[in-house]
Formats: sequence, structure tokens, C-alpha cells
Amino acid sequence: MNQNPQPIAVVNAGSATLKFSLLDGEETVLAALVDRLGVARANGSSAKIRENGRVTFEGPIPAGNHADALIWLFDWLARERPGLRPVAVGHRVVHGGDTLIAPVRITPEVIDCIDALSSLAPLHQPHNLAPIRWIAGRLPELPQVACFDTAFHATQSRIERMFALPGEYLERGIRRYGFHGLSYEYIASCLPEIDRNAAAGRTVACHLGNGASLCAMRNGRSVATTMSFTALDGIPMGTRSGAIDPGVLLHLLDQEGMSVAALSNLLYQRSGLLGLSGLSSDMRDLLESSSPDAAVAVEYFCYRIARELGSLTAALGGLDALVFTGGIGEHAAPVRARICELSDWLGIAIDPDANARGRTVLNRDDSRVRVLVVPTNEERMIARHVRQVLQI
Amino acid sequence: MNQNPQPIAVVNAGSATLKFSLLDGEETVLAALVDRLGVARANGSSAKIRENGRVTFEGPIPAGNHADALIWLFDWLARERPGLRPVAVGHRVVHGGDTLIAPVRITPEVIDCIDALSSLAPLHQPHNLAPIRWIAGRLPELPQVACFDTAFHATQSRIERMFALPGEYLERGIRRYGFHGLSYEYIASCLPEIDRNAAAGRTVACHLGNGASLCAMRNGRSVATTMSFTALDGIPMGTRSGAIDPGVLLHLLDQEGMSVAALSNLLYQRSGLLGLSGLSSDMRDLLESSSPDAAVAVEYFCYRIARELGSLTAALGGLDALVFTGGIGEHAAPVRARICELSDWLGIAIDPDANARGRTVLNRDDSRVRVLVVPTNEERMIARHVRQVLQI
Repeated sequence: MNQNPQPIAVVNAGSATLKFSLLDGEETVLAALVDRLGVARANGSSAKIRENGRVTFEGPIPAGNHADALIWLFDWLARERPGLRPVAVGHRVVHGGDTLIAPVRITPEVIDCIDALSSLAPLHQPHNLAPIRWIAGRLPELPQVACFDTAFHATQSRIERMFALPGEYLERGIRRYGFHGLSYEYIASCLPEIDRNAAAGRTVACHLGNGASLCAMRNGRSVATTMSFTALDGIPMGTRSGAIDPGVLLHLLDQEGMSVAALSNLLYQRSGLLGLSGLSSDMRDLLESSSPDAAVAVEYFCYRIARELGSLTAALGGLDALVFTGGIGEHAAPVRARICELSDWLGIAIDPDANARGRTVLNRDDSRVRVLVVPTNEERMIARHVRQVLQI
Repeated sequence: MNQNPQPIAVVNAGSATLKFSLLDGEETVLAALVDRLGVARANGSSAKIRENGRVTFEGPIPAGNHADALIWLFDWLARERPGLRPVAVGHRVVHGGDTLIAPVRITPEVIDCIDALSSLAPLHQPHNLAPIRWIAGRLPELPQVACFDTAFHATQSRIERMFALPGEYLERGIRRYGFHGLSYEYIASCLPEIDRNAAAGRTVACHLGNGASLCAMRNGRSVATTMSFTALDGIPMGTRSGAIDPGVLLHLLDQEGMSVAALSNLLYQRSGLLGLSGLSSDMRDLLESSSPDAAVAVEYFCYRIARELGSLTAALGGLDALVFTGGIGEHAAPVRARICELSDWLGIAIDPDANARGRTVLNRDDSRVRVLVVPTNEERMIARHVRQVLQI
């Protein structure tokens, strides 16, 4: 760290978690995770703070919601690390809609605009707003920047972003937005140094984590992606179904009398790898398991990704490079191997040894398609945006 | 026609229509269409009968439902064409579920089995059953065979047919079935005479009509298809949305308070080409229109088909042939041209002149993929099944 750091704070609020990081330049000097927010007991949440790889705090904290968690973190920092006072804050905000398609300094008008988009992401947008509002109220001198997970996909064509619905629905915003944009933007920013052809060409990036999606990029710009109006669409995920016949939803509602809330819970919380395996939403558990259902879940996951890779290659009109990122993409060698095996028709051929070792370049020399592993870093992307927007 | 015909009757009951054909061998000697069934007035329906290309009856008939329509047709035949008495009847039945995966002679047990599957296809299965029950009751000497639109897809793998749902849902039958099976089976039966490589290889058939789907076949057997649990999934259609983020349905129900009935009406009746164009569900109207929205609807249709073609090519591990069929597939040259243009990355190259003339073979000699137009004939397929099942 510099003698005189000017750290940028990055806030990433999930449905029950708050991730908080301090970045000095490109380096994360402190990373905190508060989880179990919003559980029944007000003090049921717990925090873990790491600095330079060491855990420096771990334990329960008195925080019932996202704003509480942020208050606790700022208090802890002021008391324990007075030299690490952030000079600005960047927020990951899930939904920017049609209007917020670039990082923006937060003003009361921007807060209203983010709030107005809450109905498009009711499970996440309010949690993104709570820390923004608390800082704007209590620390008004601290500049804030909002970075939108949808913004990277604003380059997509009009046809790409449509559903086959009447025009009134499209005008009301019922169309494809796409998510994981900060991750894909970071990957795109890394590619020129790793592989110029992948950076300039037709590349599909696979962000495979607990949430998972694929993005087709041409010259580092988004052309198409598998998540669409919501983060439920596309490939199967830890607990989410991914794409599913809309007729299944109508059937469960109409013929089986399921409630909308129960249906939403089924598709968001009980499906995907967890639903198929009956075991776990975590790919590590499934790869270690000897259960046949775990093997089916892994195979289904890889197969649907291979199918979507074919579809996205059609969007690009061919494929020059395939990039794996996210927890599964960076660490699950058998998953990468199977996806590549199912996709050999595209001219993909990887070196099993390079894959097992998790090297950056996986493809063999004779592979028509480059295959890369690039660790993502959304916090770093957000900190860059903060410095750029605020010119610091 | 033979001096002593032994015609097979084929009954294809849609939601508001009844198609009835008499086939002598492979030839249709009489084709009747009754439509506007189930509209408010009992005698609001009308019939049109063609024999050897000539219209021999046209006008309103006193039929309020599918059984009425069949009674009227059998009366008309007995009175006007006593020599055309059918020796057996074949029925297109939409859903065969997991158990009815081949054509079967109708018995009381089979009727119960078809009835039990009604909840999987509530808009169609009851209309398929009504004529079967009427004939079984009134003409018990006339043998009947049920042919299922799902059966051709029974060769698909277990992984292919799953959704990422908990096992209990898959066991209850919430999984991919696929439709248009009688059309694809007919196409597969034609391919050996047209192109041996297409017949034995990896072929995607595009059944593009008012309902529309794609089917990936290897050696004439179904590997994957775009319709799944219902005929709502997959590519956009005349009035159906095709695949759409399940989050859109949850949003319209939860955030906009839409009823399940209104949502079903939106996705089945008001979306697709009609919704996008605001003009017509009929591709002929859109291709003749100068409206920009009509052009957008056509482009969206072609683009989503090209995307699904990429996905199905992944299911096959490569592509040897592409086949167009159905009303749009057989007659809309600009649609075929645009789909092929968007798919040139697969090595598809067609001769514009052959396409404009609607020849059987569209591909240029240097095309890596064969491109064919093969008119479908579900009635002929059903009549073949009837003769095979009954050994006549």
C-alpha cells in the first residue's frame, strides 16, 4: 500500500449479503463480507474482514439490514483503521434500465431514477439503494458513483433486446437487459493484454458462479447475453432454473394452483443445480459427490452451456475465443473440460494438462478457438469507474 | 383413385377447427376443413370440402363443437359419396406423455390414458378426444388409431428432456416433450430419397407455420427440438411469444397484477408476429407490408431461428443439412434467404435463384451444408401409421 492511500470503497449489496472493499489503485487492501442480513433476529448477521489475505475480524455484528451493516463497517474503520478513510464510494447497482447506461455520480435525481427502476429488480434494487441513501444522508461530503450491472449490454442491437410481445410491453421496458455487465466489462478490459485476437474478435465469456450467464462480445462490446429481463433467464444456476418453457409456469399456476410467490421461490431458490441434485447448489459439492443425481446436475449444466454457446456463436457469426470466469469458471476444471468437449464441433480443443492446472491459456496450438481462464474482479472495475467519473 | 378404394380417414382437431381427410394409399382424395367451432352461436361454423383440387362443398353447417362437425361430415359422406366409406380412422393427438410413444389402436384403456394427459395440453387434448369418443360410441365397427405429436421425440436423451427443476417435478411429467412430431417423422421418411447424407447425418428441420418449431435429427431420429413442455416454447410464432424469460411472467403477475388467464392469452394469442408487427400473424401479410414494424417482426423471427439453429447444431455436434417445411418454410423465400444468410458461419450457402423458385435443393455446390425444401404431410404420415398398426 502507498504511504498515503486514497482508497476507494466499493459496496456490493446482495439480497442477504453486503460486500465491502477498499481498493488502493487496482489492489484490494480490505475486503469485508457481512452475511445473513434480513434474517429474523436483528443481530443474526455476521461479518468477516480480510486485509492483505489475513482475517482481521470475524464474528456476529448487530446489523439487521444493509444500512446497519454499512454503519457498523464505517464505525469499525474509523475506530480500527483511521488511516484507511475512503475518498469515494462506488456501488454495484443491479438495474440501470434504459436511461442509466454508464457509471454516474449519485445525486438526488439519480437516486430517484434508481428507485423508479425497483419494480424491474424488486429483490435487489432496494438493497442497492439503502447504503446509497445512508451515505448521502450521513456522509454528504463523500462522493458516490453508481455502476450498473446492465450497462455493458446497452450496445446490443434493438432486435437482440426484444421479446416477441406487443409493442406496448416493449415500450414499458419488458425486454432483454442482461446482467453480470461489470464482470464482462472487466474481462473485456483484460483481453487485450492476454490475447489480441480474443479482444478484437468474436468472444463468448462464461461467467459461471452461483449466478451464471454467458455473454457474446465482438471487439469487447456486448452483442448478446443469456440473462435477459431478469437474472432468472439463460443457463441453469446454483438454485435458479434458467430458461424454462413459459408454458411450465402457466401450467403450475393454472393446473396445479401454485401461487406466484411459491412459483417464484421454486424457480429462484429451489431449482438449478440444487433442484437437480437434491444435494447442493455448490458445484464443488457436486463434483466431489458420488451421487448419480449430482452427476446428472453437472452434465445438465454443461450441456445447456454448450447449447447456449452454439446460440451465441450464431449471434456473433462465428467464434474466435471462449473465456471462463467466476467461481466455477475459474476453478472447476471438469466443468470446463466437459463444456469444451461438447463444443469440439466449433473447433475447440484444449490441453487437458493446462486445464487441470488452471492455466490462463487452455487451448491446444491447433485449436481453431482460443480458450482462456480470466479471473473476474467486479470491485476493481467499479473502482476504475469511480476514479474516471470523479476524475480522481 | 382405385376402382375399389379403401380410404383411411384422418382427423386433426385444432382448438377451433376440425380437419378431415380421406386418403387412398398416399393420395388425399377428399379434404374437409370445418372452422369457427366453439364460437358463441351453435351454427356459426362453416365447412369447405375439396376433392381432387376442386371445392365440392362450401357453406355454414350446424355444428357447435368437434363431435357435431364429425357427425355432419359422416352424414354428408354417406349421402353424397357412398363409395368413399372409410375403413379406418387415424387421429392426430397432441400429447402422448411418457407412455404413449408410438401409434396405438384405440381401446377404452387408451381413451382413458389420453384423457389422463389432458392437463398437459388442456387447449387441445379434449378436442382430440371428442371425435374419438363419438366414433367409438356410434361406429364401434370402425377401427381407430391414435398418432401422437410428441411420440417422435421419445428418442431424445434423458438430459435433453429435463428442466433444471427438483426431481419431484420431473417425475410428475414437467419436462420437455416436443411437438410437430408427425411432421418431422414425415420429413425424416422423405429424406432418404432426396439426400442420403441428410437422411443419415445431422439435420435440422424447420417446421415454420402458424405454429413453428425446429427439430435436430441424427439419422432420422429426434435429438432435440425447440418446443418443449408446451407448444409455447422455442421460436416466435404467428401469435405465440416462443421462449421468454420466466422472470417476465413473474413480473407481469406480481408487479403488474395480471391474471393467469390474461397472461396466457397474451403469450398464446397476442404475441409473436402479430404482437411485434401490430398488423398480422400471417407471414404473407408481413412480407407484403411496407410497415417498419412488419419488417422488425420478420427480422426478429429469422434472427431467433438462426440463434436456435446454432443451439441445435450444438446438440448434434455439427450440421450436415437444413430442411424447410410448413407454410412459411415451403413458400416464404425471403424468410429462408435471411435465415441462411444469418447462418453462413455454419457453411450454409444457397443459390438465390433456386430459393426464389422454391426448388427442392437450395444449396450451392460449394455449401458445406445441404439446404432443402420438403413439403410436409402429416395426414399421409397418420394414414401410414393406421395401415401399419391395423395391418391393412
